[in-house]
Amino acid sequence: MRTSKVMSLEEAIRKSGLKDGMTISFHHHFRGGDKVVNLVVGKLAEMGFKNLHLAASSLSDVHAPLIDHIKNGVITKISTSGLRGELANEISHGLMAEPVVFRSHGGRGSAIASGELHIDVAFLGASSCDELGNASGCPRSENAKSICGSLGYALPDARYADHVVVITDDLVAYPNVPKSISACDVESVVVVDSVGDSSKISSGAIRDSKNPRDILLAQQAAKVIINSGYFKDGFSIQTGTGGASLAAVKFIRESMIEKGIKASFALGGITAHMVKLHEEGLIGRLIDVQSFDKVAAESIARDQMHQEVSSVEYASADHAGSAVHALDIVILSALEVDVNFNVNVLVGSDGIIRGAIGGHPDTAEDSALSIIVCPLLRGRIPCVVPKVTTLITPGKGVDVVVTEYGIAVNPARPEIAERLKEAGLKVVDIHDLAAKASSIIGTPDALPFGDKVVGIVMDRHGKVLDKIYNIVD
Amino acid sequence: MRTSKVMSLEEAIRKSGLKDGMTISFHHHFRGGDKVVNLVVGKLAEMGFKNLHLAASSLSDVHAPLIDHIKNGVITKISTSGLRGELANEISHGLMAEPVVFRSHGGRGSAIASGELHIDVAFLGASSCDELGNASGCPRSENAKSICGSLGYALPDARYADHVVVITDDLVAYPNVPKSISACDVESVVVVDSVGDSSKISSGAIRDSKNPRDILLAQQAAKVIINSGYFKDGFSIQTGTGGASLAAVKFIRESMIEKGIKASFALGGITAHMVKLHEEGLIGRLIDVQSFDKVAAESIARDQMHQEVSSVEYASADHAGSAVHALDIVILSALEVDVNFNVNVLVGSDGIIRGAIGGHPDTAEDSALSIIVCPLLRGRIPCVVPKVTTLITPGKGVDVVVTEYGIAVNPARPEIAERLKEAGLKVVDIHDLAAKASSIIGTPDALPFGDKVVGIVMDRHGKVLDKIYNIVD
Repeated sequence: MRTSKVMSLEEAIRKSGLKDGMTISFHHHFRGGDKVVNLVVGKLAEMGFKNLHLAASSLSDVHAPLIDHIKNGVITKISTSGLRGELANEISHGLMAEPVVFRSHGGRGSAIASGELHIDVAFLGASSCDELGNASGCPRSENAKSICGSLGYALPDARYADHVVVITDDLVAYPNVPKSISACDVESVVVVDSVGDSSKISSGAIRDSKNPRDILLAQQAAKVIINSGYFKDGFSIQTGTGGASLAAVKFIRESMIEKGIKASFALGGITAHMVKLHEEGLIGRLIDVQSFDKVAAESIARDQMHQEVSSVEYASADHAGSAVHALDIVILSALEVDVNFNVNVLVGSDGIIRGAIGGHPDTAEDSALSIIVCPLLRGRIPCVVPKVTTLITPGKGVDVVVTEYGIAVNPARPEIAERLKEAGLKVVDIHDLAAKASSIIGTPDALPFGDKVVGIVMDRHGKVLDKIYNIVD
Repeated sequence: MRTSKVMSLEEAIRKSGLKDGMTISFHHHFRGGDKVVNLVVGKLAEMGFKNLHLAASSLSDVHAPLIDHIKNGVITKISTSGLRGELANEISHGLMAEPVVFRSHGGRGSAIASGELHIDVAFLGASSCDELGNASGCPRSENAKSICGSLGYALPDARYADHVVVITDDLVAYPNVPKSISACDVESVVVVDSVGDSSKISSGAIRDSKNPRDILLAQQAAKVIINSGYFKDGFSIQTGTGGASLAAVKFIRESMIEKGIKASFALGGITAHMVKLHEEGLIGRLIDVQSFDKVAAESIARDQMHQEVSSVEYASADHAGSAVHALDIVILSALEVDVNFNVNVLVGSDGIIRGAIGGHPDTAEDSALSIIVCPLLRGRIPCVVPKVTTLITPGKGVDVVVTEYGIAVNPARPEIAERLKEAGLKVVDIHDLAAKASSIIGTPDALPFGDKVVGIVMDRHGKVLDKIYNIVD
């Protein structure tokens, strides 16, 4: 007989057996609109929990209330892909006794699958769920209040956590079909007013750029792709969330139509741009670990060729079957890239954490061609530098860097440089780009780092890649 | 970079690390048309493996070649839901030193999920697979050679086995979308000429009956449902594979249309009948652990509201979220039912194994209303008996027995008996049915059982329910 799993958040927490010192997890599919982390951690604080490890797939500006929970000892450890806003600022200044552990999306998936990151209780927001726990990021009733599309980052949590609580703002009739999270992986269902503001899923890093420099960079990136040797029928592509890399899709589209080339699949965070190309028949399949806007979320709800994948299936280094292994081309952004092609997407040039690793090192390493699109300067800040502030993506995985002052190609890929030169593109030495930036701006002062480790960057294979120190004002 | 997992069967077996004494697994979605078990075990024999435990979701007539592999010591243990044909006959006569372990579909899923049934290497047939291992029971190219639809019984194997080999007869371009088995759960892909004869997936127990007695039983079963108190808008239903229970769907359909009643979902082995009702708008969702015919397999390939579920999601007793917990009505068949409402679907009245447990005890126990449809006599064989030859489904889960001589209701469900009587149905005492059978046939001789245990029936909670002894001719 059917036994509803619906209960209050407090009951669900009690039933979970959560104890001080344990690990709780969250996904970030609602990005800047997320309401689940603050709601749950607020309740845990109220219930008197202490010393918890918060393992989110990512955190953003909206999670500033965690600052008080850290000060009060409710949260004493954080694992995440990224940090932004006031929470990031405070942590950069030494808020936490224990350093934040940063992992890529693929790295987090691998760590959960291998047991290195063990989750005691997962609190997973869903836009629809039935009373037994079949959950989806897609709306399923006329009462739907939210939509986030793919629940890819939540799927390893659902599969491997000891206890799973689904939090939904639309309890729908059984069976909720198709499901993303299976009722068999779920212990409790909590109904709340809102799990997230869907209008904000495309906030943060994702925006359509009208910046003329972004348009120029996008055009150059498109030319790199078209002349790289990888732009042929059946190719696959992922674009990051930067304005320029999104704009590049528009230029590639024109060339695909002109040359009669179709892509086998687009991967990653899926955007409205990719949905458009898919619906035009230019991209066969969309492989979606995260729906980057409402158009993408609505597409995954209705289109069988738009496939949800977990972060393990997306980008695990431990799984030869993860999709990055089949990826031809990725366009990525950067806060900084250095003369060894190392990339930083996490820590600002002021030494303050202001970004997220995301799938950057995963896709860079496993793709056949990775292209970093990055201006030489952002205002008075140089983006091509002698050495990145923080190492996120090792240069061995980075093939091409596109700036408005020229295109640098990793010396390990001479055949790419040759093809771009043949196409008349301006190929330059990356040292010259760094020198150019330096000649315009001068050499910046050393950052006022202290000696407290506030962040540890794990590589996607589970090893420590870099450490982030506190900033002393 | 992409590394194809495609290799020969022999390479895949070597790579798997399979050793003598280990457990190998298979699914039975191709039923009588399966070619994977014989192919793989033949290769294992050729390679010199011994003492293997074959854990299939079920076995049938087509697996008679296993007899020689058992005689040669290649296979020394079998776990399955059922056995039919010459293999079943030989095993009933004492072929194996170790008894066959019989589990229900839900029981097998639970046992795999809990680790009680540990699978070392799973060999899973698929109608399409890409080179990284994303596999489906649906065809995906113009070269497709087979179709079986849902891979529900293979999904626990894919998730929990140490090593997974997908065997396919159609290697398709990456990415194979939508997938049933994830590439991240797969180690090797083997391409063969044929994984199964799809024309035989509706062989065996499943056929459309033209037998007038079946039609009569079906009409009676439909009347029981309609008057049971559970026939109301939003109800859910599963039908077994017997001719009468399939025919009952047609009568229920008429009543649904007449009364404006719609079902929320149909569960289980999904048939063309259920697809028809779904497409007519009479059934909201199809929850499919096994596509019972080609029409059902074609439907799951195209219809998002036709959801594949694993055997754990279908019927696990350990998982409160499994679908049987939400099931209102199930119609099941029986070889024998006794005066305590116990049911036997595995061992014939001659003491020889000739059936399969399937989801019988799972659905009977968890549904709100379970109806057994069964003639009083099959030729000279009584089907309502004082005591079943082998206990498969305990009577406490069985609510109603429909025969051509009247309808018996479990005394534990007096309210059901009352409703049926009010509707003018002929409700009789099950002892009277057994007596009637006995009065027609006489009391059969005791079966010539020996003292060797040839089969152990596990209940769905993992406990021994009954033992099957050898038959001495």
